[in-house]
Amino acid sequence: MKQWELQCSRCSARLPFRYQDMKCACGGTLLVDYDLEHVAKTFTKASLQLRYPSMWRYQELLPLQDKASIISLGEGWTPLLRMPTWESKLSLKRLWIKREEQNPTGSFKSRGFSVAVSLLKEAGATKAAVPSNGNAAGALAAYAGRAGIQAFVFIPMDCPSLIVDECPLYGATTVLVDGFIHDAAAIIESGRKEQGWVNVGTLKEPGRVEGKKTMGLELAEQLGWTFPDVIIYPTGGGSGIIGMWKSFLELKKLGFIEGDMPRFVCVQESGCQPIVDGLGQPMAVTPTHDSDASLAPEPHKIIPNPTGMRVPNPPDLELLLSIVKQSGGTAIAVSKEQIAQATQSLGAEGISSSPEGAATWAAMLVLCDTGWLRSTDSVVLFNTSHAMKYAKLGASAAIPIIKTYEEFMVYRNI
Amino acid sequence: MKQWELQCSRCSARLPFRYQDMKCACGGTLLVDYDLEHVAKTFTKASLQLRYPSMWRYQELLPLQDKASIISLGEGWTPLLRMPTWESKLSLKRLWIKREEQNPTGSFKSRGFSVAVSLLKEAGATKAAVPSNGNAAGALAAYAGRAGIQAFVFIPMDCPSLIVDECPLYGATTVLVDGFIHDAAAIIESGRKEQGWVNVGTLKEPGRVEGKKTMGLELAEQLGWTFPDVIIYPTGGGSGIIGMWKSFLELKKLGFIEGDMPRFVCVQESGCQPIVDGLGQPMAVTPTHDSDASLAPEPHKIIPNPTGMRVPNPPDLELLLSIVKQSGGTAIAVSKEQIAQATQSLGAEGISSSPEGAATWAAMLVLCDTGWLRSTDSVVLFNTSHAMKYAKLGASAAIPIIKTYEEFMVYRNI
Ligand SMILES: Cc1ncc(COP(=O)(O)O)c(C=O)c1O
Ligand SMILES: Cc1ncc(COP(=O)(O)O)c(C=O)c1O
Repeated sequence: MKQWELQCSRCSARLPFRYQDMKCACGGTLLVDYDLEHVAKTFTKASLQLRYPSMWRYQELLPLQDKASIISLGEGWTPLLRMPTWESKLSLKRLWIKREEQNPTGSFKSRGFSVAVSLLKEAGATKAAVPSNGNAAGALAAYAGRAGIQAFVFIPMDCPSLIVDECPLYGATTVLVDGFIHDAAAIIESGRKEQGWVNVGTLKEPGRVEGKKTMGLELAEQLGWTFPDVIIYPTGGGSGIIGMWKSFLELKKLGFIEGDMPRFVCVQESGCQPIVDGLGQPMAVTPTHDSDASLAPEPHKIIPNPTGMRVPNPPDLELLLSIVKQSGGTAIAVSKEQIAQATQSLGAEGISSSPEGAATWAAMLVLCDTGWLRSTDSVVLFNTSHAMKYAKLGASAAIPIIKTYEEFMVYRNI
Repeated sequence: MKQWELQCSRCSARLPFRYQDMKCACGGTLLVDYDLEHVAKTFTKASLQLRYPSMWRYQELLPLQDKASIISLGEGWTPLLRMPTWESKLSLKRLWIKREEQNPTGSFKSRGFSVAVSLLKEAGATKAAVPSNGNAAGALAAYAGRAGIQAFVFIPMDCPSLIVDECPLYGATTVLVDGFIHDAAAIIESGRKEQGWVNVGTLKEPGRVEGKKTMGLELAEQLGWTFPDVIIYPTGGGSGIIGMWKSFLELKKLGFIEGDMPRFVCVQESGCQPIVDGLGQPMAVTPTHDSDASLAPEPHKIIPNPTGMRVPNPPDLELLLSIVKQSGGTAIAVSKEQIAQATQSLGAEGISSSPEGAATWAAMLVLCDTGWLRSTDSVVLFNTSHAMKYAKLGASAAIPIIKTYEEFMVYRNI
């Protein structure tokens, strides 16, 4: 075989590599399949130890012809932060947070777009478009800017304005859409041919899954080439889950790690929970002893926040569900209130979390409470984006203004 | 000698280590001095190559008794991004940007406070206070939160509200001050004894300089244990310059690097430029062929933005000036307009820069124009904070809202 080809994740059909149109004739998603014997020649634990800490250290498992085409802004190798205090509070064996907000565009989307835009560059593409709840738009804009490719981003109009504002700064043609992310996607499909856009939406091209895969490779390496027991991940389109799953399979086939795959937990926000619904084993939104479940509003009457988790129609739900099931994982929807509370708990630990990151914390609390998480489990949460991006101005208008220490004392005594 | 002591940077007096009160009787600043023979036993290029990429890889050069006291949130080892397109545009040998905004609190201040708060923890301190233009306040708040220490932050009331808002999230008592950073400092000094605060303001304790020192160590290591020719750094209180200078001296004494120290360029914003003034060799705000210097407003009538560079009275200006002069460097003030333009140029390259980071870009352009930077120079700029922190809501209210591809075409044709 070639160094890499495409393989359908549903019917296993094989195709030569291409950088767009990832739908197989059977309706399944095409994923990149590497010649692992070839990879193994240079990709060893020892060789990795001496490589620069960036996601491009895994270059043999990324589908780029030429190192010189890499479009990089400093992505990957984000910190994996241990949470010792909470390990004992919650009786978990280990608890870590992967701080993906420390990527160059302030979210894990940097990874996927570093690979996707490098592929576009290599293919000579000049225009790319993406429908996005914001972080993907910013990442496409930034990497396309760096690469000299024109970016067109389509964002639901209720998405956080700071995320939106970044896109024109990077030089992207930026448009707000009166609708959801799939409405934005439909606009791109309508104009794609006429405009000469490559659609780099979720699962429309191979680079984003491959880039997100590096979260899994990195996690395994940071854990000394072991898997955690459980990964809790805020899931929207699902390419993060697909990418990490794929990375773990590759590591197993390469003989880097043996044993069980991690259990994948997909977290969504109540009101937009296709994965939770698809699994057909709904979990309580709040732990049962905390509230009377019968009083909770019906999930589909709730209006979720415009976050990266709000993807009503993931492009390959079937693949996502099969990964979650095979892994022995689950899916869980958490409420706005649970997310807000989690933001406070993480803040008190010195971590400013995006709503998506906070949602994984909230999910973890529920899963501890219900006993799904056990004291033998090592757990990794993903803080996928920067808190600041979701900020609202004037949020803390109540902060006092003083001129002297005496005024400070007056305020303290109120 | 002990593993480390304090030494006065002015009169060379030596004192036992302590974690507060860094003013020597002579008025000079006390800095940490290590027993480098002892350090050299374990701190070698080879041993470093196998260490985890975090600023704590340099632990022998950080004044902590016990590794277990480290308060970490995932700081350091930030990307050093090469700018090849601009190297040729500007005829520079090499151009890099150090992306310090990728630190856990979104600014380089994470480094200093990781060390400072670890020292407080080791000393058993329970309350710390800082005067800050914002980023230091957020960093103290976060690390103190992680450490279980109470933080009190005092911020000039015109500082960016998103930076201010983060502090209460981390659990800090947050107060806005009607005045400048030195007015905030005066309030802390008035209340310090009564409140039991440790003042962790610039040069008030040893941790922040030592933490910022890791920017220099890291830079040298990332450049294969060489120095760049020029470092352009947005300077406020000056602990970054002092820390990096110190780190380079240590590396020279350890025999890691030989040859000339980098030339340090301090960048400030017109209207608050004590270092530029102190050097007494004022440089034109804009390149002479671009504008008629006689038409420019007098620097001291300009009101600078509330950024980290706005420190009218640096705590040890003498030390700063001596470093800049010894290094063969310079200082330069840039205008709001130059900063705004630089933000655009960096944005187009996929880099979202804080005003401080953009100021270094603006300074570089001027120094290229005047011939101070030469085609043999390798240059490093520091983007010290996250663009988002300075964002104003509604900045791009002009972004169009559409529902269909046809509406997109209408907008495109206007
Ligand atoms: C911050 C954030 N978290 C999570 C997600 C969902 O990730 P995925 O597309 O991998 O399911 C997104 C996607 O937009 C996001 O922006
Ligand atoms: C973003 C930013 N850049 C630069 C500075 C100035 O750094 P230093 O105190 O090392 O001079 C500060 C200090 O507040 C800052 O917040």
